[in-house]
Amino acid sequence: MHQANPLHRLLNPQSIATVGAGNNPMKMGTMQALSIIKDGFQGNFYPIHPKEEYVLGHKAYHRVDALPETPEVAVFIVPTDQVVSLMEEFGKIGTKYAIVITAGFRETGEEGMKLEEQLKEVANKYEMRFLGPNCIGVLNSQASLNITVMSFDQEPGMLGMASQSGTYITQSFNYLRRRGIRFSKAISVGNEASIDLVDALEYLGEDEDTRAISLYVEGIRDGDRFMKVASKITPHKPVLAQYVGGSEAGARAGSSHTGSMAGPDYLYDGLFKQAGIIRVNSVEDLYGHGWALATQPPLKGKRVAVVTNSGGPGTSMANTLNEGGMEIPEFSSGLRAQLKEIIPPHAASGNPVDITFHIDTQTLIHHIPKTILQSGEIDGMVLHGAMGTGFLREIYPHVKDFLQGLTEEEFVQRYKQEQGESLNLHQKHGLPFLVSSFFDARDNYTEEYQKNNVPVYDSPEKTAWAMLALNKYREIREGKDFSTPEVPPVSSEASKIVQEALESGQTSLDEYQSKKILRCYGVPVATEELTSSVEEAVKIAENVGYPVVLKGCSPELMHKTETGAVQLNLNNQEEVISAFHRIRNSAGEVPVLVSKMIKSEREFMGGMTRFPGFGPVVMGGLGGIFTEALQDTAFRVAPFNLAEAQEMLFDLKSHRMLKEFRHLPAVDINAMGQIFQAIGTVGLLHPEIKEIDINPILFDGAKPIAVDALMVL
Amino acid sequence: MHQANPLHRLLNPQSIATVGAGNNPMKMGTMQALSIIKDGFQGNFYPIHPKEEYVLGHKAYHRVDALPETPEVAVFIVPTDQVVSLMEEFGKIGTKYAIVITAGFRETGEEGMKLEEQLKEVANKYEMRFLGPNCIGVLNSQASLNITVMSFDQEPGMLGMASQSGTYITQSFNYLRRRGIRFSKAISVGNEASIDLVDALEYLGEDEDTRAISLYVEGIRDGDRFMKVASKITPHKPVLAQYVGGSEAGARAGSSHTGSMAGPDYLYDGLFKQAGIIRVNSVEDLYGHGWALATQPPLKGKRVAVVTNSGGPGTSMANTLNEGGMEIPEFSSGLRAQLKEIIPPHAASGNPVDITFHIDTQTLIHHIPKTILQSGEIDGMVLHGAMGTGFLREIYPHVKDFLQGLTEEEFVQRYKQEQGESLNLHQKHGLPFLVSSFFDARDNYTEEYQKNNVPVYDSPEKTAWAMLALNKYREIREGKDFSTPEVPPVSSEASKIVQEALESGQTSLDEYQSKKILRCYGVPVATEELTSSVEEAVKIAENVGYPVVLKGCSPELMHKTETGAVQLNLNNQEEVISAFHRIRNSAGEVPVLVSKMIKSEREFMGGMTRFPGFGPVVMGGLGGIFTEALQDTAFRVAPFNLAEAQEMLFDLKSHRMLKEFRHLPAVDINAMGQIFQAIGTVGLLHPEIKEIDINPILFDGAKPIAVDALMVL
Repeated sequence: MHQANPLHRLLNPQSIATVGAGNNPMKMGTMQALSIIKDGFQGNFYPIHPKEEYVLGHKAYHRVDALPETPEVAVFIVPTDQVVSLMEEFGKIGTKYAIVITAGFRETGEEGMKLEEQLKEVANKYEMRFLGPNCIGVLNSQASLNITVMSFDQEPGMLGMASQSGTYITQSFNYLRRRGIRFSKAISVGNEASIDLVDALEYLGEDEDTRAISLYVEGIRDGDRFMKVASKITPHKPVLAQYVGGSEAGARAGSSHTGSMAGPDYLYDGLFKQAGIIRVNSVEDLYGHGWALATQPPLKGKRVAVVTNSGGPGTSMANTLNEGGMEIPEFSSGLRAQLKEIIPPHAASGNPVDITFHIDTQTLIHHIPKTILQSGEIDGMVLHGAMGTGFLREIYPHVKDFLQGLTEEEFVQRYKQEQGESLNLHQKHGLPFLVSSFFDARDNYTEEYQKNNVPVYDSPEKTAWAMLALNKYREIREGKDFSTPEVPPVSSEASKIVQEALESGQTSLDEYQSKKILRCYGVPVATEELTSSVEEAVKIAENVGYPVVLKGCSPELMHKTETGAVQLNLNNQEEVISAFHRIRNSAGEVPVLVSKMIKSEREFMGGMTRFPGFGPVVMGGLGGIFTEALQDTAFRVAPFNLAEAQEMLFDLKSHRMLKEFRHLPAVDINAMGQIFQAIGTVGLLHPEIKEIDINPILFDGAKPIAVDALMVL
Repeated sequence: MHQANPLHRLLNPQSIATVGAGNNPMKMGTMQALSIIKDGFQGNFYPIHPKEEYVLGHKAYHRVDALPETPEVAVFIVPTDQVVSLMEEFGKIGTKYAIVITAGFRETGEEGMKLEEQLKEVANKYEMRFLGPNCIGVLNSQASLNITVMSFDQEPGMLGMASQSGTYITQSFNYLRRRGIRFSKAISVGNEASIDLVDALEYLGEDEDTRAISLYVEGIRDGDRFMKVASKITPHKPVLAQYVGGSEAGARAGSSHTGSMAGPDYLYDGLFKQAGIIRVNSVEDLYGHGWALATQPPLKGKRVAVVTNSGGPGTSMANTLNEGGMEIPEFSSGLRAQLKEIIPPHAASGNPVDITFHIDTQTLIHHIPKTILQSGEIDGMVLHGAMGTGFLREIYPHVKDFLQGLTEEEFVQRYKQEQGESLNLHQKHGLPFLVSSFFDARDNYTEEYQKNNVPVYDSPEKTAWAMLALNKYREIREGKDFSTPEVPPVSSEASKIVQEALESGQTSLDEYQSKKILRCYGVPVATEELTSSVEEAVKIAENVGYPVVLKGCSPELMHKTETGAVQLNLNNQEEVISAFHRIRNSAGEVPVLVSKMIKSEREFMGGMTRFPGFGPVVMGGLGGIFTEALQDTAFRVAPFNLAEAQEMLFDLKSHRMLKEFRHLPAVDINAMGQIFQAIGTVGLLHPEIKEIDINPILFDGAKPIAVDALMVL
């Protein structure tokens, strides 16, 4: 049954009650209430206060059950020990949504965790959903609803934000305003006891006013649901995420912040890639790239025009874009001729177009962009050097003696130029346009660009990086295969192997058992048989064909190579016999596996591990002796489709070795992908298996073969 | 003979003449003159003007030879075709220094290049040194000298800047002022026809007021001199560099900007590492990290305290620092107990110290830092959340009804708190301190920090990245061996081989010749001999001991492996004989090299290539089949010392494979380093050799051996 997302109501309430707001404006609870009252909330507002008759000019109620109607949303900013009973009181009168600002729960340790459990129980009892505890509230700019500690005086915006840190949706309001970045909705999820980050993501995905979504993540509890929800959104709406729990210190800090459970960085890196999420590594990019994605038309190709009044920023933007995989095409001779008519004689027309230092900015901001936008030779544009009143103010102290007493303001007004249609030209042509300027919104050009939803970045490189984010989303939207993976039925043969091993007390499956399970799910393994007799070993060898490998096979046998339990490259009967005895001498009376020897210069590997809240996490990477040394690995969460499995391979630095390589044929990429899928399938269908390690995967020509395998129960 | 750096005089002139300044304040030339006049220049100022009697209130001269004294520095902002004759005129009257702002030279193509050559000739004739052409001028804040287009109204600073883009020392003044970043000296080098970036670097290295140096680089002409100059500075003064010429687009844009010659990114990456320069990839970091290095005490270790009023920024700073190699140590129980006395009950005391949202900021900015700084448990500190008047202004619209008519300004003054000694506590303890704030200098805390040379960054991650830059410099200062490399004498045997090859018309040296040269410089190669007779081949094989390798050996033979000219792993006389014939069948009547076979699981490689202006560029990397696939390489410019050669190895991702690795012993790092040094030596002493390729370098136990080699003449 599809439950409606609780945030639809929570962000659009008819009525709100607060507990903890009073008449001292310097208290946090009061600030929160003031934001509701002052920033445009149109519904009914009910302060609960033990003593006051009026709070912030609104009639106050001493008790919850004295309220004249059931408030749709209750907001708590009270001491920790009052939260549970308050939730109960609101539950009793029928309130279904709450925001618990109060901290002191899970993030503080065991007692807090218990208290949080009580809070959840009460909420469940009354079928209530709530944000927090330990959150900062929400913002809905379309509904003029602000339940945070700071004032929000901007126009409605297009960037949706869900954050495990409240700061990023309040303390940064001033920062965002200066950059012209405007939230559609912003949701602080705190400890996520009831409504979590995934609910917020889902809501923002459904919200039509939200054109791009930014996520600040310290840890995700339900990785599978996150994946499902995100994969539905990213094909049509860009999602960005920052993850900060990947290091020891990050995990520890996050845990004492919101009690989050962090996982290794590679897990989240794989998760984001798989879900089509653009990963960023700073809150600046979460905002800045998010704003570019929320405001600009989708990029249709990777050709960028660089327009500048200065060589340095132009060169750096060109270089940054090019290194990031975009093109700065040299313009056609026709376009160059057109440009030469409007630019100064020594100016560069090729792309970058660099008119060098110039007082008349109309050429830079209008004539050149217009000519280029009309050409059809590019897919996006970056511009540096639009300086208006900011520049005039810079020179005023030097020129004022010449101005017959003009004040700075009069001087600025006299000389300032308007942008006119240059502000919207790119929209007309459906091409993204990003601006770099050393001047902030006190410059009229920066201000006007920002007002017209043209992102302005304070350095050339940031402008280029934002364009690269647009390009990343282009690749996701155009290239990513989001089709639902199919999981095959469980193999009864595999189940039986696992069951028997468990019953016999094994804590891991030996190589033979492990490979048999893999074979059940279509993984090609070397032709091989198990035996305990030397005569049979010879017979098997003759059957599979020389050269063969003999390996001692037992779940207890680790590090087979080092202990002499592996005998490679045996070419005849005598060698098999003597190898058999060597194994028995070194490893004891273990069964011996006789396998066809596979010679391969390329070695890869696959594996599976588990993290709470996530499906089986499949790893692929460079194998053999390079496994630990190069740590060239990629991760995905099962199940995933074949295209995703192949993407995994292309994440590897060593992916070039999969192509035709020296005298070796190209690897069968489908077959490799299917191995990774099969590893995931084993993990999905056999929860008793905790870990899988297939190393190496070798190649018989183009065909990958699992040569050694181990599974931990 | 040591020539005094021309910038000493050019940046401290007694008198300046300008040509191109008039009385129209909106012209670039006039702006430049106004900066001289208005920003505090104390010497004599002489405008040259064809018509005006007075320029900007100063008596003007119609001709250069009419000047009442010889100006020490001449500044030209005139049409391109007037520059050469003007230089001549100033040369005649004895002026020794000039700044040529005018563009239209080398950067515009062949004709411009000729004109630039003429300009250099004239300057040489009169022993003049000049900046530019195509530059924006200079700034010397200690001498109140500003020869740029914009006004500079800041206190003298500590960050030195040398830039191949004028914008980064003018257009960014406003940007820098808002961040409290102040130049000591800033030098725009333009086309570098006379004074170049290296001169500027050298000058800034010598300048006592400059505490850190930032370089914006599109291309370096004299790489060897750059290396020498930089290596003298970086042991005692940090140098940062951004390089933007590494991509096709970056190189093209740079070339049309200042006519610079760019080289591949890896070359500059190696160059910077070798010189102890911290590489950054944005102008923001050039400024921001430069400012941290210019203002903060040197970092003495890698333990950082994270202090915050918000979990998100605290977690992200901790994570970013930790991922970057620094430590966020959990505080001792003693320190935690001290902290708990001053922080709120639920606040985290462990590190990060997170007091969560709080109006009283004295705890955050003063009490906590003081307690931690005194503890001796950390080496540096980052702080997020100091919000003063900026925060008050944010809430004013909401609280003003309660303020009995207080204006915003009165409200802010009433509630604002002072930082007091918290501003300088870290200096007292000699520890670096960096601040993260979403509020700019309109917040009194940000403003005061900036005034007191505490860098404030507008995001938590940037604060952490700046601290990581301090840590990088700590590693350079403490760890880098700057001792001068010794180059051995030339080997007459090697010279003879090269000479004979050239005389016989060879364009490359064959494997045997190449290895003989390497052996002359101490590179261990496999025991081997060359022969043309099968009988002798067998004898050699018996001498060097089985197994052996036979290889066809001729400068014409490329891709030996693919063409059957390499026969590996020959174990006896018969195998040698048949291999000899196989080689002759496939490769013709070539001589055959009989070498001891070396079996090695690890394969590395070395090489040498040349770039104009740079010494031989030595490459080291992972070899064998992984060479192209993984492109794991590092570069240095010869000559370099043994420690530097070993640093090269640690640059490689695969450096873990050099340690004790599975059943393999640790590689002899000295011997590996000596091979890289020897490759450089060959390049230095034999300029006829254009390229060297040694691939693979294999290992006999710990000892590296050059197994195949090729040199291009």
